[in-house]
Amino acid sequence: MDMKQITINLLTKIRCGAPLIHNITNYVVMNSSANILLATGAAPVMAHCLSEVEEMTAMAGALVLNIGTLQEDWVESMIVAARKANTKGIPVILDPVGAGATAMRTAAVGKILSQADISVVRGNASEILSLASTGIVTKGVDSSVQLSPQVADAARHLAAANNCIIAISGPQDCVTDGHQFFTIANGHPLMARVTGTGCGLSAVTAAFCAMDRDEVLPATAAAFGFYGLCGELAAAISDKPGSFFVAFLDSLYAAGEKEINRLLKITLA
Amino acid sequence: MDMKQITINLLTKIRCGAPLIHNITNYVVMNSSANILLATGAAPVMAHCLSEVEEMTAMAGALVLNIGTLQEDWVESMIVAARKANTKGIPVILDPVGAGATAMRTAAVGKILSQADISVVRGNASEILSLASTGIVTKGVDSSVQLSPQVADAARHLAAANNCIIAISGPQDCVTDGHQFFTIANGHPLMARVTGTGCGLSAVTAAFCAMDRDEVLPATAAAFGFYGLCGELAAAISDKPGSFFVAFLDSLYAAGEKEINRLLKITLA
Amino acid sequence: MDMKQITINLLTKIRCGAPLIHNITNYVVMNSSANILLATGAAPVMAHCLSEVEEMTAMAGALVLNIGTLQEDWVESMIVAARKANTKGIPVILDPVGAGATAMRTAAVGKILSQADISVVRGNASEILSLASTGIVTKGVDSSVQLSPQVADAARHLAAANNCIIAISGPQDCVTDGHQFFTIANGHPLMARVTGTGCGLSAVTAAFCAMDRDEVLPATAAAFGFYGLCGELAAAISDKPGSFFVAFLDSLYAAGEKEINRLLKITLA
Repeated sequence: MDMKQITINLLTKIRCGAPLIHNITNYVVMNSSANILLATGAAPVMAHCLSEVEEMTAMAGALVLNIGTLQEDWVESMIVAARKANTKGIPVILDPVGAGATAMRTAAVGKILSQADISVVRGNASEILSLASTGIVTKGVDSSVQLSPQVADAARHLAAANNCIIAISGPQDCVTDGHQFFTIANGHPLMARVTGTGCGLSAVTAAFCAMDRDEVLPATAAAFGFYGLCGELAAAISDKPGSFFVAFLDSLYAAGEKEINRLLKITLA
Repeated sequence: MDMKQITINLLTKIRCGAPLIHNITNYVVMNSSANILLATGAAPVMAHCLSEVEEMTAMAGALVLNIGTLQEDWVESMIVAARKANTKGIPVILDPVGAGATAMRTAAVGKILSQADISVVRGNASEILSLASTGIVTKGVDSSVQLSPQVADAARHLAAANNCIIAISGPQDCVTDGHQFFTIANGHPLMARVTGTGCGLSAVTAAFCAMDRDEVLPATAAAFGFYGLCGELAAAISDKPGSFFVAFLDSLYAAGEKEINRLLKITLA
Repeated sequence: MDMKQITINLLTKIRCGAPLIHNITNYVVMNSSANILLATGAAPVMAHCLSEVEEMTAMAGALVLNIGTLQEDWVESMIVAARKANTKGIPVILDPVGAGATAMRTAAVGKILSQADISVVRGNASEILSLASTGIVTKGVDSSVQLSPQVADAARHLAAANNCIIAISGPQDCVTDGHQFFTIANGHPLMARVTGTGCGLSAVTAAFCAMDRDEVLPATAAAFGFYGLCGELAAAISDKPGSFFVAFLDSLYAAGEKEINRLLKITLA
């Protein structure tokens, strides 16, 4: 698989097609996720009300469910939207923000996974491990564990058990469907010093998956690689978080074939 | 009408008077609309709870109603706030975000228009046309149609039928009360690559209308012209969306008489 | 008391310990408060649902309650979270955004103060005076009064009556427990031209208090001084609000011992 060419092709399709990405996401990142999607080339919409989520999802190229700042009634909207997406073959990306930190969030993820088909679960290692009932405790919304052979095994098993892709971001990323296993070495530590960069990655993953519904595994890896290398490009411009995030949005907009060929580091194990 | 002088006068009044602008707006843009208003010189406040909207509106120079990320209970708050504004002669600006995309949003706009007096409806062409029952479908929150003679006619009829000003933003803007018809040639395509620039224009329109309640038609055109030329100034500083938006806020704060005289392009047809 | 050394020590502890700060805050500033905390070195989490606030607070180093964009059901979550914090000795910072502007907000502050122990109330002069039943009316969320001997006396009395610290930000800041009285001369007028800088100060105050629960009075003064001098550093980089806020985040991240020794202006009266 030529991941550089796949990434370039998907990015080009996003920029030509401006896929509508429907986000049911948390209050903290609604603005930043919208800007991250717009910079990349996609068209974001945010809508969470039960009365309109099905209609909005039906128009979309992909659906993002994100459980940060969760309220109980939002879970119902998420499930209804995801089921509509399922009937139309629209990819659904689940971001389990803070799973493992509170019982409510862990339960919400379990409920969503049991009542709808999720294409990709994108989280940090703590959040993903909490889904595997390892007893790992998440500190707020930040990861307290690193990618290790044990975490990789847990990811493989979770993917196989839930028939979905598990995508873990962190110092080193991994993306697996339980069989194939990608590692992605792009990214920069400053990304963790800006709120919503993880959530933004879930949104960009949705945009990539929207362009190739039949190949969401490489599309997810491509999204991770592209997003991470834009972080590297931004860190070359600024080493402080305020101006770093500005440069990151600029990079998502401007980076293309040349930067992907030069920087993308995706390995299929 | 000397639109350059009118624009300069209204902007000066905003910067001296810091009018309080009460926003009942969507989650995505609460932060950006507040910053756009502050940069321009106004004083934003966000409050949506039925228990306090009347009190807050009564203090304000103008009221913004924006239906993005809508929930049903917010519509009631919007109507109560608008009626309070009506009793005090306070201008009300309605931003029909995503009208035409879902039945819920289209219905909400119809309900608000029928139960309160709206001074200005500010949207993109798709959103505005959806109010005219043309069968146009809005793609998420982005416009799928351009300004054309047909759109201009629809705007005139809508304005006359609802006794309000219809203000359409896009590559070319138009503002009409059904009789007079302004076109505004300011603006820049990068504005569409940052979330909330349309919503921010509704907020700035409110600030301009707050300074001359009896002349909201030219005040709306002035707001569009000033806002668009700040987009041009920002695009001269950066051609990428992250740094563009930073420069746009800077321009809203710093642009004045000189820039208005040099760049404002408002035509009364 | 060597306030420079105290400030340096607390900041160092924040950057080493990355204290989790639990925010139940308003929609406008959720993103900016998170970024302000991350830039400073703390780990923000936002959660407001009654079902999870106790669990989240129990993990946190400090709790922020902020009544902007208030809804009635959020007040209950705030009180439940604050009581959990009280049982564990976790500092609670209350930001009475818009108190005095509407009856609902003034009542909410009264209810919170009467049902939980608050460590620090951080607001502008109008908001703080509204708690003292002076009949002062707040204009939206901005202060309509300046720090004066009368305001200082009111702050002392409020602090003593509520057994908490009263911290007033403005052109000149003051922090008092009813006995000791600090004035802080750091800060810059551009901070008032960016939304959420006051709310961000409440969050940073929480981070400082998290590092020394037994000395929240000097910790609050230290937070005010550090925050204000970062505003000064940012204003030296940009005199316009968009780029000023970017530089402010950069300064919160980069400023340290050298800048504190050079710029901190905290006086114990």
